[in-house]
Amino acid sequence: MIDDELDRLLGPLERFETVRRRVARLGNRACDLSYANFAGGVEPDALGVLRRALDDDRALGMQYAPFGGQTLARRAVADDLRVGQGLPTTYADVILTPGAMAGLQLALRVAGVAGDEVVVPVPCWLDHPLYVQSLGMTVRPVPMRTDDFALDLDAIGAAFGERTSAVLLSNPNNPTGTVVTPQLAEGLRDLIVAHERRTGRRITVIADETHRDFCPDGVFTSIASTVARTLIVYSFGKRHFMQGQRLGYVAVSPAHPERAETGAELVRWTRITGTATPTAVMQRAVHGLLKIPLHTEALHRARARLRAELEGLGFTLVPSESTLFLYLRTPDGLTDAAFAERLASDGVLVLPAECFHHEGYVRLAVTGDDTVLERAVQVFRRHAPADVTTGAVA
Amino acid sequence: MIDDELDRLLGPLERFETVRRRVARLGNRACDLSYANFAGGVEPDALGVLRRALDDDRALGMQYAPFGGQTLARRAVADDLRVGQGLPTTYADVILTPGAMAGLQLALRVAGVAGDEVVVPVPCWLDHPLYVQSLGMTVRPVPMRTDDFALDLDAIGAAFGERTSAVLLSNPNNPTGTVVTPQLAEGLRDLIVAHERRTGRRITVIADETHRDFCPDGVFTSIASTVARTLIVYSFGKRHFMQGQRLGYVAVSPAHPERAETGAELVRWTRITGTATPTAVMQRAVHGLLKIPLHTEALHRARARLRAELEGLGFTLVPSESTLFLYLRTPDGLTDAAFAERLASDGVLVLPAECFHHEGYVRLAVTGDDTVLERAVQVFRRHAPADVTTGAVA
Repeated sequence: MIDDELDRLLGPLERFETVRRRVARLGNRACDLSYANFAGGVEPDALGVLRRALDDDRALGMQYAPFGGQTLARRAVADDLRVGQGLPTTYADVILTPGAMAGLQLALRVAGVAGDEVVVPVPCWLDHPLYVQSLGMTVRPVPMRTDDFALDLDAIGAAFGERTSAVLLSNPNNPTGTVVTPQLAEGLRDLIVAHERRTGRRITVIADETHRDFCPDGVFTSIASTVARTLIVYSFGKRHFMQGQRLGYVAVSPAHPERAETGAELVRWTRITGTATPTAVMQRAVHGLLKIPLHTEALHRARARLRAELEGLGFTLVPSESTLFLYLRTPDGLTDAAFAERLASDGVLVLPAECFHHEGYVRLAVTGDDTVLERAVQVFRRHAPADVTTGAVA
Repeated sequence: MIDDELDRLLGPLERFETVRRRVARLGNRACDLSYANFAGGVEPDALGVLRRALDDDRALGMQYAPFGGQTLARRAVADDLRVGQGLPTTYADVILTPGAMAGLQLALRVAGVAGDEVVVPVPCWLDHPLYVQSLGMTVRPVPMRTDDFALDLDAIGAAFGERTSAVLLSNPNNPTGTVVTPQLAEGLRDLIVAHERRTGRRITVIADETHRDFCPDGVFTSIASTVARTLIVYSFGKRHFMQGQRLGYVAVSPAHPERAETGAELVRWTRITGTATPTAVMQRAVHGLLKIPLHTEALHRARARLRAELEGLGFTLVPSESTLFLYLRTPDGLTDAAFAERLASDGVLVLPAECFHHEGYVRLAVTGDDTVLERAVQVFRRHAPADVTTGAVA
């Protein structure tokens, strides 16, 4: 039974899917900027790793893996977090999951219980609020700052209460592309420590780092470096453009005050919830996938170019350099759903802000090929803000 | 937070895992009959299907699939249910899941809400009660008949109450290997219909058919052929000995009174719970995997031979011909945990009945190779019932 509140949270994306089905009839003429599906498909290197994992035909190689995942695969992730993020994790801190979605559900379960409140800075990823609500917890949405879409620490502090058990956010933020700077992470830590001193209440930061590989060098720092009680959620899907292969993890910060118990509890939840593990083949692929160098230059260029072209047309975008998305303000007082609908009528699919529990913006994926992005720009030109296209002065 | 009741339900298997780790130190001398891990590994035909699915490198082939699964893969399952089980399903009745575990969780969610009761005939599969409890529902265990381990219809009828929303069972039964005959299915249907007439209460049968491929010809009939409001849960893992590849489904009976709504609700739950879908590669493999003929003769022979040898040693086993397991009564008044512990001391791993919410039995998998099974028989000989090995007459 799906109750009214879950039904309401399911709504925006389901409405978008009806728009998508209509636009799909245009076939190749449609420009789909709704999801970060990379036009080039899976990287050949990643495909090679999967082939070798499948051919590594040890006896019992495709049988059950232990809950939490194979130790070797967990250790490969721990090594990567140590080298890549400066976090001295061990295999026991890493719980492999079939994608980040499952990881988020598990992280919420160890952070709190039904009746608790979870602070969610908005705009936020599509289903963060849905997951919170589905576990009987209450979402406390806290708007990000309206100028630069950074975390609003004052507002977050004001939202902390008797039942707060977690702050759930994506970093870098999906849809805006903004990151939590080390200074903001320190501010968040101070708020949490002060709240804990005052109330005895433990607050976990659940940091969804699904897009951390798509930041310019030096821009990203894991919140786990600053806030001790942090759970990192990650997906291999974005990095290798194989979201459909369902490989991700939850990692417990090595500074977590209940580090060992938290890791062990996450493993137990993979059993209780029937989440189990990623597939045997994908677990065997972890080590190889982590060794493939990131090739993100072309994406950064595509993102910067598309931003410049849209700004040239008079659109306003959230200033950010990270993720595979741009977040664009709807022109002329249009609602985000109405603007997305207009673009869809011209064959361009974007996600309206209501999908991100926000309003007045749309999200564009920059992963299409040049032809798609150029065609999309032509459509945006037709829907550019009136004060620019008509030559009017604001 | 894992509450006390969940903690209690997690206990037996976790205790067994400590035994397993001890026995694992014996290396090759250990005889592991605890799980149905097939000694031969994955069938070469199935591995070929997976290779081709991976090489079928369409653009976007590994990107997100729609919730519920790719229509082509869902249709392949629907066709298979029509031909194999005589159930005229369509793609919309089939919701692909990452294994049967996820499928069971989804089925329970559409069948009822927190506070409801679920009737579970025992012995039952390991985590059926854990799943029920984790959703805030109450388990009503109903012992199967003690002579032949068939469903006890009188006891099930007596357990139906104001809050009953489902009957959850595995058919064929894991661990006993018994099947629900068409006559018993009719009896169950009559109980459900009478209860609904009397109370207005709808009861869903959740039939976990994970082991239906391991029955002698003509022995198995899906309960969905008889009870209209049935949800079938299935896993491809057992059939092809790739449990680690996480491919399964929930299928709505074509006679289900709320057929279309139930299928649509199951799809929505795959999103709400973060379950998502099986991997892209496994979805692409569905069609090919279903076309591989079953080769179960050797397993049926191994099962019959092991049974005969153990009966020859004086052990009592549940009379059954199906599944990959034998269910054996502990001798000499020993508890199942104590008997399993004794066998483990001699290197043989079996699961005690407490793992199946039952007592006084142990479960043996028959999937080991000849050497393993023969060595296991030697160990069982040393632990045979006293009245036989000593020549005493009962």
